Amino acid sequence: MITEERLPNWLKKRAELTPERVAVEFEDRLYTFRELDELAEENARKLASVGLRPGDACAVLLRNHIDSVIMIHALFNAGITIVMLNGRLTARELGWQITDSESKWLISEEFFSSKLEGIATDIPQTEILRKEKIRSLPVTAESYSQAEFLLSDAATIMYTSGTSGKPKGVIQTFGNHWWSAMGSVLNLGLSEEDCWFCAVPIFHISGLSILMRSVIYGIRVVLAEKFDEKVANEMIMDRGVTVISVVSAMLNRMLLSLGEQRYPEHFRCMLLGGGPAPKHLLQECTRKQIPVYQTYGMTETSSQIVTLAPEYSIKKIGSAGKPLFPSQLKIEVDGRAALKGEPGEIVVSGPNVTKGYLNREEETKRAIKNGWLYTGDIGYLDSEGFLYVMDRRSDLIISGGENVYPAEIESVLSLHPAVFEAGVTSKSDRMWGQVPVAFVVPFPNSQPAKAELIDFCKEQLASYKVPGEIIFCDSLPRNSSNKLLRRELKQWLEERG
Amino acid sequence: MITEERLPNWLKKRAELTPERVAVEFEDRLYTFRELDELAEENARKLASVGLRPGDACAVLLRNHIDSVIMIHALFNAGITIVMLNGRLTARELGWQITDSESKWLISEEFFSSKLEGIATDIPQTEILRKEKIRSLPVTAESYSQAEFLLSDAATIMYTSGTSGKPKGVIQTFGNHWWSAMGSVLNLGLSEEDCWFCAVPIFHISGLSILMRSVIYGIRVVLAEKFDEKVANEMIMDRGVTVISVVSAMLNRMLLSLGEQRYPEHFRCMLLGGGPAPKHLLQECTRKQIPVYQTYGMTETSSQIVTLAPEYSIKKIGSAGKPLFPSQLKIEVDGRAALKGEPGEIVVSGPNVTKGYLNREEETKRAIKNGWLYTGDIGYLDSEGFLYVMDRRSDLIISGGENVYPAEIESVLSLHPAVFEAGVTSKSDRMWGQVPVAFVVPFPNSQPAKAELIDFCKEQLASYKVPGEIIFCDSLPRNSSNKLLRRELKQWLEERG
Repeated sequence: MITEERLPNWLKKRAELTPERVAVEFEDRLYTFRELDELAEENARKLASVGLRPGDACAVLLRNHIDSVIMIHALFNAGITIVMLNGRLTARELGWQITDSESKWLISEEFFSSKLEGIATDIPQTEILRKEKIRSLPVTAESYSQAEFLLSDAATIMYTSGTSGKPKGVIQTFGNHWWSAMGSVLNLGLSEEDCWFCAVPIFHISGLSILMRSVIYGIRVVLAEKFDEKVANEMIMDRGVTVISVVSAMLNRMLLSLGEQRYPEHFRCMLLGGGPAPKHLLQECTRKQIPVYQTYGMTETSSQIVTLAPEYSIKKIGSAGKPLFPSQLKIEVDGRAALKGEPGEIVVSGPNVTKGYLNREEETKRAIKNGWLYTGDIGYLDSEGFLYVMDRRSDLIISGGENVYPAEIESVLSLHPAVFEAGVTSKSDRMWGQVPVAFVVPFPNSQPAKAELIDFCKEQLASYKVPGEIIFCDSLPRNSSNKLLRRELKQWLEERG
Repeated sequence: MITEERLPNWLKKRAELTPERVAVEFEDRLYTFRELDELAEENARKLASVGLRPGDACAVLLRNHIDSVIMIHALFNAGITIVMLNGRLTARELGWQITDSESKWLISEEFFSSKLEGIATDIPQTEILRKEKIRSLPVTAESYSQAEFLLSDAATIMYTSGTSGKPKGVIQTFGNHWWSAMGSVLNLGLSEEDCWFCAVPIFHISGLSILMRSVIYGIRVVLAEKFDEKVANEMIMDRGVTVISVVSAMLNRMLLSLGEQRYPEHFRCMLLGGGPAPKHLLQECTRKQIPVYQTYGMTETSSQIVTLAPEYSIKKIGSAGKPLFPSQLKIEVDGRAALKGEPGEIVVSGPNVTKGYLNREEETKRAIKNGWLYTGDIGYLDSEGFLYVMDRRSDLIISGGENVYPAEIESVLSLHPAVFEAGVTSKSDRMWGQVPVAFVVPFPNSQPAKAELIDFCKEQLASYKVPGEIIFCDSLPRNSSNKLLRRELKQWLEERG
């Protein structure tokens, strides 16, 4: 007896249940769920007036802004699948995703006007709607709003940055988003006093999932256009923020800015994603009694799928934790289940996991087998079932026949008191095939000697893992989710010759 | 793209995530999720040793006890659909349900031995397993435990008491239970410090849903064999209980026993089900700052589907609130949507609502149309969308062509300072067809005059709603969920002649 589950339209339901609660705080202005619902409905009718209809796909190129939140809900209301575009891409890359996703429309804003001109030239058939113009569109008398969401319907498409090859559009259904929110609430708990700070991009799943949770849980989101550590700290200290999503680079800056102050007790979750965190960072958080939840997730899992509870933060340092309640995880080596402690490919399943890539039947079949997603990432489970993510498969360094995982070396380097952060790649080597090379950002006013850092590594790592070279730099290359881009490190290396 | 969602086995998953948290407290003994999981696994193997296999149906006749919790999880592990039997039924009624549900097995205990003898005589083909005997069964080497639960699989069958006609087996899938738990968590919030007191029968959905939530949320349940107001109050005052499920008769007794004491701040939810609550009770709760959540629900909705938040407890007095996040509600009159304020049939939908009655295609079709369950209950929505449940349709009294709802009269009577509770039925009348008759339980040491109560009603009710007769009694007839049995009032009346 399989039935297609349907839920009431989330924002409308939320506005019916708790109309007066604050939904979004943006630039010191508060929007209740009732207001957000009314604004979304108004915009859905404006979009209908220019011809958008249920079933269409529409690309969206917008910054973190209240208008973007309204537009996302307006599009959900209108039954339109949203293709979330990354504002850092070039016009050419954006045009490719618009074409690949067969989006007839692109909603954007003046801020991106030069990119929009490029897109208009490359793919003139795309109808570009600037938000500044949408404002003055007429409102249809009739509402096209969906009263219900089918859980199997595609809500959003996000292209994965992909460590190699062409980007693929990940289909995220309403069900995927819903289950992700459920996995999170069963892990973190929920209070109507909760308030989630969102300074990660809403075009990434890390940001969008916060907007989804706001509506499903009925909690306030403080939305920031971009991340600023002073603002983030102020929001926690004085403005009632209880949960924040960060990556380690953001957390690092917050801690530096925080100094010897402590966060208040109502602050209950520092949700840390975007790759393994350096140990010194976690130790510093423990010292300051900051409740860090390390997580592992990706676009395909509609945000985190594995999370480490704070009580294990130090005991299981470096672990991403255990799969959330609705999700499952296994480690595979050459098609067999890995032994405890044995590294292999991380394979996940659960109703939060995508059913596939848009118009990519072959790649979907390769990635998803019998409901299990093969992530391409490498990790192992310890004897108690805690996941340790070692690396993205494509970043694997093989040196003298031994596997070397950059994250492990980075983690060791970042334990050195003079090291702020480190990124590791490899260079080719006649003897060993490849040897690791470390890019190191020292703490301000620190000037560690290269030899000292090499010795520090030798103390803690097998000799084949010790970097063949140390290079100092001011910052590491990261994408807009603040994930370390090791490919770019490799390019830097090549440019140095 | 419809797929059959599957989740990891709930208890096993919970034991993996939070093995050391307390799952159940029973008679001062604590059982962690790890222990509960091990005991359930052991019992699943014992049941397998006598031949129970995935897909079988098994009836269960057990009291509230830790052994029963273990047995329920053992049966889920073993992939067996559980038919939950009501311990207050006669052997004949039990036998009927066992036969109707095609249960090959009956798991019970010595406590019910006389009923078991009756069943053995009536339906000798049923294999009866007493829990005292299961203890000594061998354990199979192989585990038959389900690693996953399909959300569309039937988890439990519960027969509805039914106000008339033969009982029907309501199919509750794992999905129904899951979504019910999700609707509740989005309404009540969740903290790992939560602790739910269960003194309602686990063979009813009110009790079973608490056991489900314990495992899904990872919270402690304090299980009591039967309700005792002193114990309930002690659990809240001194033993960390934060949530309790009650019906108004239980709440009444708790308040009397509580006297002028106040519940501690950590106590955050008095979940009040089983029909409309008298106003004096709600007013008393407000005075004592007790956070009462009035609810409306039934076996078919896998526990509450409509709930009133405490902030509306007095402003919307008498209302059951709004449908939980995943659920929807409408009021129908002769096939059309009722106007605001107009009473009609309460119709509900949502993934927590049953897909139908066991082997009752006709009755399922009559009750569920296009995914909407026609409850047979009467209610209306006010201008802000709050539900007021007026009555069970079958209890409707029609007097002089006017509709009279017993609950309305009961509610007025219970406002009288001398009235503890009241139950209303009707007797036939030559002039009006039917007239209401009220059974009244006075407060201890109160002796109101009948004329005084009649006058009190006249002040507040249209004349056709005023009881034609008042009858004093010591207590009202209730079923094991403490729901008022108006049919029995009618019988009392007939017996009086």
